[in-house]
Amino acid sequence: MSFGSDNWAGAADAVMATLAEANDGQAPAYGDDAWTGRACDLLRQWFERDVSVFFVSTGTAANSLALALYSKPGGAVMCHVDAHLARDEAGGPLLFAPGTQLDVLDGAAGRITTEGLSARLAQYPPGVVHHGRPAVVSITNVNEIGQCYTAADIAELAALAHGRDCALHMDGARFANALAHTGAAPADITWRAGVDVLSLGFTKTGGWAAEAVVLFDTALREDAAYRHKQAAQLFSKNRFASAQFVALLRDNHVLGLAGHANAMAARIATTLEASGAASLVMPTQSNEVFAFVSPEAVARLNAAGIVCAPYGFRSAFIPEPPQDGWELRRFVASFRTSDGEIDALAKALAG
Amino acid sequence: MSFGSDNWAGAADAVMATLAEANDGQAPAYGDDAWTGRACDLLRQWFERDVSVFFVSTGTAANSLALALYSKPGGAVMCHVDAHLARDEAGGPLLFAPGTQLDVLDGAAGRITTEGLSARLAQYPPGVVHHGRPAVVSITNVNEIGQCYTAADIAELAALAHGRDCALHMDGARFANALAHTGAAPADITWRAGVDVLSLGFTKTGGWAAEAVVLFDTALREDAAYRHKQAAQLFSKNRFASAQFVALLRDNHVLGLAGHANAMAARIATTLEASGAASLVMPTQSNEVFAFVSPEAVARLNAAGIVCAPYGFRSAFIPEPPQDGWELRRFVASFRTSDGEIDALAKALAG
Amino acid sequence: MSFGSDNWAGAADAVMATLAEANDGQAPAYGDDAWTGRACDLLRQWFERDVSVFFVSTGTAANSLALALYSKPGGAVMCHVDAHLARDEAGGPLLFAPGTQLDVLDGAAGRITTEGLSARLAQYPPGVVHHGRPAVVSITNVNEIGQCYTAADIAELAALAHGRDCALHMDGARFANALAHTGAAPADITWRAGVDVLSLGFTKTGGWAAEAVVLFDTALREDAAYRHKQAAQLFSKNRFASAQFVALLRDNHVLGLAGHANAMAARIATTLEASGAASLVMPTQSNEVFAFVSPEAVARLNAAGIVCAPYGFRSAFIPEPPQDGWELRRFVASFRTSDGEIDALAKALAG
Amino acid sequence: MSFGSDNWAGAADAVMATLAEANDGQAPAYGDDAWTGRACDLLRQWFERDVSVFFVSTGTAANSLALALYSKPGGAVMCHVDAHLARDEAGGPLLFAPGTQLDVLDGAAGRITTEGLSARLAQYPPGVVHHGRPAVVSITNVNEIGQCYTAADIAELAALAHGRDCALHMDGARFANALAHTGAAPADITWRAGVDVLSLGFTKTGGWAAEAVVLFDTALREDAAYRHKQAAQLFSKNRFASAQFVALLRDNHVLGLAGHANAMAARIATTLEASGAASLVMPTQSNEVFAFVSPEAVARLNAAGIVCAPYGFRSAFIPEPPQDGWELRRFVASFRTSDGEIDALAKALAG
Repeated sequence: MSFGSDNWAGAADAVMATLAEANDGQAPAYGDDAWTGRACDLLRQWFERDVSVFFVSTGTAANSLALALYSKPGGAVMCHVDAHLARDEAGGPLLFAPGTQLDVLDGAAGRITTEGLSARLAQYPPGVVHHGRPAVVSITNVNEIGQCYTAADIAELAALAHGRDCALHMDGARFANALAHTGAAPADITWRAGVDVLSLGFTKTGGWAAEAVVLFDTALREDAAYRHKQAAQLFSKNRFASAQFVALLRDNHVLGLAGHANAMAARIATTLEASGAASLVMPTQSNEVFAFVSPEAVARLNAAGIVCAPYGFRSAFIPEPPQDGWELRRFVASFRTSDGEIDALAKALAG
Repeated sequence: MSFGSDNWAGAADAVMATLAEANDGQAPAYGDDAWTGRACDLLRQWFERDVSVFFVSTGTAANSLALALYSKPGGAVMCHVDAHLARDEAGGPLLFAPGTQLDVLDGAAGRITTEGLSARLAQYPPGVVHHGRPAVVSITNVNEIGQCYTAADIAELAALAHGRDCALHMDGARFANALAHTGAAPADITWRAGVDVLSLGFTKTGGWAAEAVVLFDTALREDAAYRHKQAAQLFSKNRFASAQFVALLRDNHVLGLAGHANAMAARIATTLEASGAASLVMPTQSNEVFAFVSPEAVARLNAAGIVCAPYGFRSAFIPEPPQDGWELRRFVASFRTSDGEIDALAKALAG
Repeated sequence: MSFGSDNWAGAADAVMATLAEANDGQAPAYGDDAWTGRACDLLRQWFERDVSVFFVSTGTAANSLALALYSKPGGAVMCHVDAHLARDEAGGPLLFAPGTQLDVLDGAAGRITTEGLSARLAQYPPGVVHHGRPAVVSITNVNEIGQCYTAADIAELAALAHGRDCALHMDGARFANALAHTGAAPADITWRAGVDVLSLGFTKTGGWAAEAVVLFDTALREDAAYRHKQAAQLFSKNRFASAQFVALLRDNHVLGLAGHANAMAARIATTLEASGAASLVMPTQSNEVFAFVSPEAVARLNAAGIVCAPYGFRSAFIPEPPQDGWELRRFVASFRTSDGEIDALAKALAG
Repeated sequence: MSFGSDNWAGAADAVMATLAEANDGQAPAYGDDAWTGRACDLLRQWFERDVSVFFVSTGTAANSLALALYSKPGGAVMCHVDAHLARDEAGGPLLFAPGTQLDVLDGAAGRITTEGLSARLAQYPPGVVHHGRPAVVSITNVNEIGQCYTAADIAELAALAHGRDCALHMDGARFANALAHTGAAPADITWRAGVDVLSLGFTKTGGWAAEAVVLFDTALREDAAYRHKQAAQLFSKNRFASAQFVALLRDNHVLGLAGHANAMAARIATTLEASGAASLVMPTQSNEVFAFVSPEAVARLNAAGIVCAPYGFRSAFIPEPPQDGWELRRFVASFRTSDGEIDALAKALAG
């Protein structure tokens, strides 16, 4: 049994069924097929506007492409010190936009703040070529510490970014979980709040390789299409990528799956707290729970074969462990997490 | 009805069934799962030796990664003027190994020759930094004109390449079709003949996104692993990539599928020739047929809704059309192509 | 004694004198000094319009920066098969604009032709992402075979390039020699004929490291400034770069130096022809002479310690040697070449 | 009068004289000349061992090439948060080694510490591809806050770096100032202490464009030669670059120039402190002085036309200003700074 990651889950039943359906007959390659058309239409409905969509194979690909689209000579990407793109993508975003500087900043609860961003932007006086210049501000929503940005948070950051001719990028690897938590419409926490480009990840929420760059500034569509191909991300049999999106967007299915995962995470949090052997790092806002766990409890989880990953953050805002020796662990719920599994967790913690 | 490309076909039944099977339960992410282990084991059996395998999403990704692995400062990649990597990947291989020079050479039937390669290598005298230096020789098998290299062809090119400290790369987007045509064992036309790294593509032969870099020089395994991740090609739910390979390698299923496609292409070729309205560019050695087609026949195919793609080559070895106005067209058979479809082609050609 | 290359000559006396003058006192770094202002003003006068100027250290740097400025995702640079940037820069231009494809084409006398370019551009149908798309057309003037483009030649190529949203770049490593040969004004064979960006090289004509990117489309000035710095080409003590340009542009001094070199090359050509032991590859239009030389004459030159470089071209338009065993050699005159040296050449050839 | 930067000074007299000398006659291009041989020999004597030397045009070029030489797929470069390569090179080092991650760490007095480095390296567990892996540790000596590393400091960092298969790079833009301050031999604070590659900058100490990559691991010589050319850094008339080194290394002339600059900086520091209107940030160890200056004193300096640059650091170790409104300013002395200038500074401060 594993709370290791939401990508340990397979694909949702609806996804598997739709893939089988999409396999019927011949279809034009490289995205010129009906399933891709359908997925793009559903995304346009979801976002309540025209969007350009590029299906890709991984979240790293989505982030890398999105940032490259807004890269500039000497350009810097600003993001949180614990951002996935800064810490867990082996420099991928720097390969797809060579010469790009990553400039990380800290902020409580995994969020960059307007104060922090404003001060950082000021370190790039216009026209001073030596430092380079800001190009993109990137935020993750749900972020790496499991917390959400509100539409208001985003709008403030967008205003700052746009004021310096920077794009605002959102890494939405758990975008549906953010929707489920905040109750916001997809448009509300993206383009209406000033997001220019979104890495939309449905893999963790029921797809098997369901990632896309959603580009709100459709003027960049042509450039993006060439980048997408050149970045080795244009699937030949693209209908299999887009069918996953169709399955997950029909009747907003993905929201239900994300909501279930969030609810299960809330139960994990309650269970951990109730055990007395764990201390939450912060309130749960998604399908991820970060907690300090006592060494005894870690041993009991190991003995019960329950997987939860040791975790490290760079942010100075992460609190100290409540007691020496308590370990920071991540527990992730998925669309497949069951009440029974959480009961088993409770039992294991109880020893 | 389409002979447009083998990637217009969906996935083989066995692939869909295995994907459904692989979806069961949780599994470690990023390739640490049992399906990935199984696929790698099957590939080791297939190639009769240890190999390092990196699953990727597209053929462009496989080629780009493979070349990048053997890139050098100032390095040049030599390939045929019509090579897919030179003509149809929007510069992808040059993005993943920045600074790499592509140095194309011509050769009859889409093959580079030992004479041609030898002369070209001589244009890079050792130590003359101005020209750069050879780094990789890349061949495609089945090549872009539908022709195969024999093990002997390959061994000669490998000797030349290795003599100048170059790797030999094979783009095997239709590798199974080459096996089916030549009857060679996978090892015979790869590492035993001197191939260092293979782009192994099963997408066109029954997968949906079944591409891998197969690295025979396992000393590069660690470097390759970091490149693979950085190149945004490490699937989180990798079991879905590897399960396709399991389905296609079990009982050498892929060879049967490729053999069927080749046989159907042979029938297409016969049908075209018999029609009097088409003239083959060269004898059929795979699942692709290139033919000059009379304008009247093109019109009849269009009227019948039969898709075949207009095609252009850069090679000086492509013959002139037998008559003015005849168009070069590509007809591709897949594992799904049926006798009925070829009967329909014959009928349409007959008018 | 050497006709090896015009970069075997040192710097012109005026350049050395001006460098000494420029060394006086303190001056702001990074191009904010008076000498740089003066050089830019002189260039504006020379080109009869506003230009943006970026001083760089090498011709490769100028070409790389110029191309990078106009690079696009999936973009291809079209140039002659013997272009310096394709053959003698170790892939530099591909490093500064990662992912750029070089697409070489042949043409008589080292020139690309409107027919050739037009046909090549047609191989990139708009919207077909697989091939990428044209981004830059680059020509060299004086070209690699020592021949010049006329203003009319350039205007025709520019029209084709601009028609496909491509920039026209000129590699002017021997720009002053082209001016001296054609009698054209600098503006006539650059922006007035449609050139967007020029690599202006004065190193071969009397500087010691006098290279610059001259950008006619000044809207790209800001992007170029960041690229220039990022490309490691912004000299801290830039006055020493710009002072060379001041020395060479004052009273059009560079034209005199180039004219001398051209005249000396004409004498070399006459001398070679008169010897009966050499056969010119084409009429002399600059300070470079390419000739097939008999093995006996080569031996006599070697014995006399006269250096001339063996040369190889890829162009199919280079004629066959008049007799077996005659070698293609390059003889280059510089601003320092003297009549006495050519007398010595004549004597050595006579044996 | 300016204490703005040591690159506001011109070139030393010996440099100008040697350049004039080097201008005599023809010489092979691209470093195959006698002056380059002489410079390399002098560097070998200076470093008391074989070294490979690559002359470049800027410090950014030296740093970028040096780091690229030791880059790896997924590789990270660790350096101080205020390192020139992280803050003042517009991402140059990331362009020359695409995909490289910069991972900055703080440390008192501009130095990275063994504790800090050790902790940071531990964040890259071997084999975890997601984070990438350490590739290079880079230190600046004299560092960006004007402080020196001792041989012992360096040896400790080198041991840590090498323990993780990382190279140790030294940015020696003011290397001679470090020698003059510490009294160490060049070998002592480089290869004997474990430095693998040095950016050796003599521009600030009397050259005009006198920068070189000094490679102690000569096994990388061939790779470096191709990178150097490809990076657009191989001067055609290289004798003019190497002659500067000859001038500065003959009789250790550069050490005298650096010693003078250091001594002048010491007088600046004393003068600032004595004025009561300024407070030193830290003790002076080179030719740079950082001080908080009162607003009144700033006004007096401005009125007197004395230039000193406002400065900002990111390090948390920079102290707070002694009083509100005092500004952090940098004063730099050069080989040309005179006692008279410092007298004028004292006078201006006194008001």
